[in-house]
Amino acid sequence: MIKAGIIGSTGYAGNELVRILTGHKEVEIKWYGSRSYIDKKYSEVYQNMFQIVEDVCKDDNLEALAEEVDVIFTATPQGLCASLVKEEILSKVKIVDLSADFRIKDVATYEKWYGIEHKSPEFIKEAVYGLCEVNREDVKKARLVANPGCYTTCSILTIYPLAKEGLIGMNSIIIDAKSGTSGAGRGAKVDNLFCEVNENMKAYGVATHRHTPEIEEQLGYASGEQVVLNFTPHLVPMNRGILVTAYANLKDGVTEETVRDAYDKYYKEEKFVRVLEKGICPQTKWVEGSNYVDVNFKIDSRTNRIIMMGALDNLVKGAAGQAVQNMNLMFGFAESEGLSLVPMFP
Amino acid sequence: MIKAGIIGSTGYAGNELVRILTGHKEVEIKWYGSRSYIDKKYSEVYQNMFQIVEDVCKDDNLEALAEEVDVIFTATPQGLCASLVKEEILSKVKIVDLSADFRIKDVATYEKWYGIEHKSPEFIKEAVYGLCEVNREDVKKARLVANPGCYTTCSILTIYPLAKEGLIGMNSIIIDAKSGTSGAGRGAKVDNLFCEVNENMKAYGVATHRHTPEIEEQLGYASGEQVVLNFTPHLVPMNRGILVTAYANLKDGVTEETVRDAYDKYYKEEKFVRVLEKGICPQTKWVEGSNYVDVNFKIDSRTNRIIMMGALDNLVKGAAGQAVQNMNLMFGFAESEGLSLVPMFP
Amino acid sequence: MIKAGIIGSTGYAGNELVRILTGHKEVEIKWYGSRSYIDKKYSEVYQNMFQIVEDVCKDDNLEALAEEVDVIFTATPQGLCASLVKEEILSKVKIVDLSADFRIKDVATYEKWYGIEHKSPEFIKEAVYGLCEVNREDVKKARLVANPGCYTTCSILTIYPLAKEGLIGMNSIIIDAKSGTSGAGRGAKVDNLFCEVNENMKAYGVATHRHTPEIEEQLGYASGEQVVLNFTPHLVPMNRGILVTAYANLKDGVTEETVRDAYDKYYKEEKFVRVLEKGICPQTKWVEGSNYVDVNFKIDSRTNRIIMMGALDNLVKGAAGQAVQNMNLMFGFAESEGLSLVPMFP
Amino acid sequence: MIKAGIIGSTGYAGNELVRILTGHKEVEIKWYGSRSYIDKKYSEVYQNMFQIVEDVCKDDNLEALAEEVDVIFTATPQGLCASLVKEEILSKVKIVDLSADFRIKDVATYEKWYGIEHKSPEFIKEAVYGLCEVNREDVKKARLVANPGCYTTCSILTIYPLAKEGLIGMNSIIIDAKSGTSGAGRGAKVDNLFCEVNENMKAYGVATHRHTPEIEEQLGYASGEQVVLNFTPHLVPMNRGILVTAYANLKDGVTEETVRDAYDKYYKEEKFVRVLEKGICPQTKWVEGSNYVDVNFKIDSRTNRIIMMGALDNLVKGAAGQAVQNMNLMFGFAESEGLSLVPMFP
Repeated sequence: MIKAGIIGSTGYAGNELVRILTGHKEVEIKWYGSRSYIDKKYSEVYQNMFQIVEDVCKDDNLEALAEEVDVIFTATPQGLCASLVKEEILSKVKIVDLSADFRIKDVATYEKWYGIEHKSPEFIKEAVYGLCEVNREDVKKARLVANPGCYTTCSILTIYPLAKEGLIGMNSIIIDAKSGTSGAGRGAKVDNLFCEVNENMKAYGVATHRHTPEIEEQLGYASGEQVVLNFTPHLVPMNRGILVTAYANLKDGVTEETVRDAYDKYYKEEKFVRVLEKGICPQTKWVEGSNYVDVNFKIDSRTNRIIMMGALDNLVKGAAGQAVQNMNLMFGFAESEGLSLVPMFP
Repeated sequence: MIKAGIIGSTGYAGNELVRILTGHKEVEIKWYGSRSYIDKKYSEVYQNMFQIVEDVCKDDNLEALAEEVDVIFTATPQGLCASLVKEEILSKVKIVDLSADFRIKDVATYEKWYGIEHKSPEFIKEAVYGLCEVNREDVKKARLVANPGCYTTCSILTIYPLAKEGLIGMNSIIIDAKSGTSGAGRGAKVDNLFCEVNENMKAYGVATHRHTPEIEEQLGYASGEQVVLNFTPHLVPMNRGILVTAYANLKDGVTEETVRDAYDKYYKEEKFVRVLEKGICPQTKWVEGSNYVDVNFKIDSRTNRIIMMGALDNLVKGAAGQAVQNMNLMFGFAESEGLSLVPMFP
Repeated sequence: MIKAGIIGSTGYAGNELVRILTGHKEVEIKWYGSRSYIDKKYSEVYQNMFQIVEDVCKDDNLEALAEEVDVIFTATPQGLCASLVKEEILSKVKIVDLSADFRIKDVATYEKWYGIEHKSPEFIKEAVYGLCEVNREDVKKARLVANPGCYTTCSILTIYPLAKEGLIGMNSIIIDAKSGTSGAGRGAKVDNLFCEVNENMKAYGVATHRHTPEIEEQLGYASGEQVVLNFTPHLVPMNRGILVTAYANLKDGVTEETVRDAYDKYYKEEKFVRVLEKGICPQTKWVEGSNYVDVNFKIDSRTNRIIMMGALDNLVKGAAGQAVQNMNLMFGFAESEGLSLVPMFP
Repeated sequence: MIKAGIIGSTGYAGNELVRILTGHKEVEIKWYGSRSYIDKKYSEVYQNMFQIVEDVCKDDNLEALAEEVDVIFTATPQGLCASLVKEEILSKVKIVDLSADFRIKDVATYEKWYGIEHKSPEFIKEAVYGLCEVNREDVKKARLVANPGCYTTCSILTIYPLAKEGLIGMNSIIIDAKSGTSGAGRGAKVDNLFCEVNENMKAYGVATHRHTPEIEEQLGYASGEQVVLNFTPHLVPMNRGILVTAYANLKDGVTEETVRDAYDKYYKEEKFVRVLEKGICPQTKWVEGSNYVDVNFKIDSRTNRIIMMGALDNLVKGAAGQAVQNMNLMFGFAESEGLSLVPMFP
């Protein structure tokens, strides 16, 4: 039994971490960090946890926390984790950072897209990009894991086998992504009010969304080429779920069978990636509440493009679930411990 | 490890049984019954179960099933279970019936409200009304359990302590209930289309809904009086959740404290009934996906009425979760086995 | 052609006033007041108005406004209108106040339920309660109209004929009301975020909601008795719409026919109140975007209670539509001018 | 005052025609056709029309109808209009066909994508494609107008100026479209049940959707090239609204200004196409209930692609509104008569 602390436990991703860890056999949560709700009972902030969690929220004190726990999850805004992490802390605890601070290897790229100065660039090299299906062995040895973004996880896993196997033109990629509103967080903003989101749909952050360089970097590693692509996120009137529809030019001679073999090669043994049967399009509801990513594809012979589709729950595989999956690998637990969550339908 | 069969496994309640039993340590599902989808893979009917359930659907054959399993869940339309159950079957397996066939002790009342002839009235007396918090000891010894309705469970558990302790005028009770749309089932009807339900709200079955006599009968047992009450269900644009707002006249001298003591007396030790703290109104989202019922109350001294409120997930505590809770009691498992589902928020 | 000013034009009710007045033949909007968006283009605050409204927002200056327009709508928080209104202003313009400031005749009651001091009690007596179907003749002569609340309009019109004709026990009334989320306004609050409201339902303000005394006062005038009742509002995951389900004891000898005659007596000639045919329950979607109130009832002979139901669009008949209806009466226009809005379905 | 008949008046598009024509000064609806509801009151099928429409539904008899009215709208499944239209009928009435029967000039293409035989190919040449902003003059002279599809209208109007001006690579176009559920019609299908659509999102008809050849044909006329493109529709949990996100490669030297000039050239004088200001992304809610299309674009200099966005209400500009706009042109009425519908927000 290890002990865990959550910095930023009162955001939606933090609450999802609590939900998942509550059912994890090897972990006990010792610290519910929350700058906004210090000394308030956690279950008063999230009444779903009434009679399940009795603790009160504490300050985001990483140093104090490092003395008490074995693993820290930072589910906080960009910049916070980078500003607090130190060798002294990392020598005592392992960290799974759900923010973007250690996802991008090039500091300049990070600083340009996020518009903030990186406060601890010395740890970027060490940090492992925690996309378990791709970097499993490195995650096992990591002290600091950069948990991938929600759009990113869905986009990369949807495209990865084709990038890795060289089946598509890497600079022809267009990713059109749609997300439920929990991805926007629990902050009180007019744009996220029920009446503004319900019965409405829009693109946002067009050509400027911060997950773009993260996707490009990872698909670049996979393909061995530098990748520049289009990524367009959209806000959809639902709580949870990301759906990615990605387009790319097929290389000559690539067939339905080639593509299916590629997906099978990388995902056949993966519990959390389900390659759907031919003709079945992923639906976000089929993965809701679970750590699954559902992927599939369709080849359009008229345009010689492939349409790749992926769906996940942004708070689970897109955040808290993947964070726990990373923790499981880091501590040698069964990778799916605490994550045997069956999708809830309807 | 016992074996279970589900008759009607492809309705929403059936699918929820599959979701819950999949995580139950003591049960293995051996039979996915579904008249409409015989020989079709279960996971093609419910893609959320892809790579989780590999079985194909079978016919609703209760006799064949009785040879193979230890417990049968019947999640079928009214009348089916009553038409199939026999001593020969009950001597081999235990049955949890999610339909209304054995909920009402008076055959005439059943036949009047449901408009069908009861085909096996001889088992009505034996059947135990499976509201675990009220009839726990009887359920443990039962062969045939009548699993309560969704509206009914929420209504009764919300009012029960006050009825039992004689704190309210039993003929002053008005229950105004609101339900998510999964309660209407998966049948293809215009009234349940997205565009008809979304951005809409209505009452239905006013003064005629079939759950009325079931509530009256159970509250009658609790209070020792014959009870006649108003029950008005409403359809709400959400998938899951029932919210009950119940009104009654307080008897003389009943105070806030008397009422809270009554709730505590019956629910303090109950895992699945959470009496919220003063001033907190139940919300359906706080119990979604879980087996909890959240209840609370407010006294209006101006009118000397009490407003009692309860919330549950109609597919869990209102159907499949309670059915599993009953099964746990019948087979001597821990009552909460398979039911440690933390509510999902948001 | 008269000129109108809107104080608080950037709230949801304010925007609905703009929508309706834009289609009104006799009115031109001259002043878009908005404390929060001074000097910003109105259509940047509400992009639906792009290329329809070219004006910029101005301060909430009632005195300056009185010089420029013939009618002022105040769609502002409680207290504002009362703090600004003066004889000097009322001698120049007519005012339709969408806040609660002049709805309640007893200052003490107002101050107790709203928790603020009334700044101009001298105008309370003069103000006409603008429920057009009830006070039409007085509205025609008014300088200052108190536009009724959304819950109130729906509750009163649903019950009024029975109260007026003495068919129900006035102290047996229980009103269970359900509202879409636009009633909560456009303020940025966590409770009104999409993820908190969607897939969720709750009661709020139980036994303490401010519309209670307003309903009691008006039903008191109708029945000639002092009325104390229960009113419970609920928040529903939809943008627009209020559904009222009201319960009362029927007086002896009152039949289906008596009740239907009462509804016909008061509403047969009313364009905006539709008494539905027997057996049809009102649905909020059937009135969406329009100024209609749909009402109907069901008698439960088992309990001798009547269940009365009403539905309206909270932003139209519950706010802006009724305000325009009042304005039409005050200026001698056709009562339905600008209000021939056909409900939008789906 | 002309007389109109609606064949298929009880579908969602039919009901929207009724809503719009009810407010049209020059038209009186004389025939509410509906195969499924013959002899039933129209307002019993659509209760929003209670006390507004008193007529009963009649059979879909085009010949009888041609004797009684001046214009016929056919809001029916594919194939019906083509099977009924004759010279004898067209010599008496004008027809606006909301189905796809006369949209595609090449019969073979129609028959391939729709999988049915065309029953009156002799009228295809005469039929005018009723995209008013593009074919206004031809529409004015037409006897038979093929009203464009909902996805099609949004896609074409979003891309048209760039295709016409030769600013983009016509074979680089990818259209990712998202639609509310009313586009799926009022048929009772499991896939369109509230619980299947709500909190869910999916692509469908990938690389096979029937609106593809219609878009290709029209953009082909605009650009003077043969066009093959990708079109992917998605189902979104909202009633109304289509959002199109389209991608294309920019030709050399095309700048922000070139593009904006192109949009202005074609749309500056168009009432129903609103080119939003720089940086503002279209939202479906901003056009809900109205005949507007909102368009805008963003250039991504990193990939040298343009992202074009468009939003409309699929039942108005995507169906009934555009049909009325066509009728207005055909009969010489003001083009916007009956269509001054201000978008409803929220």
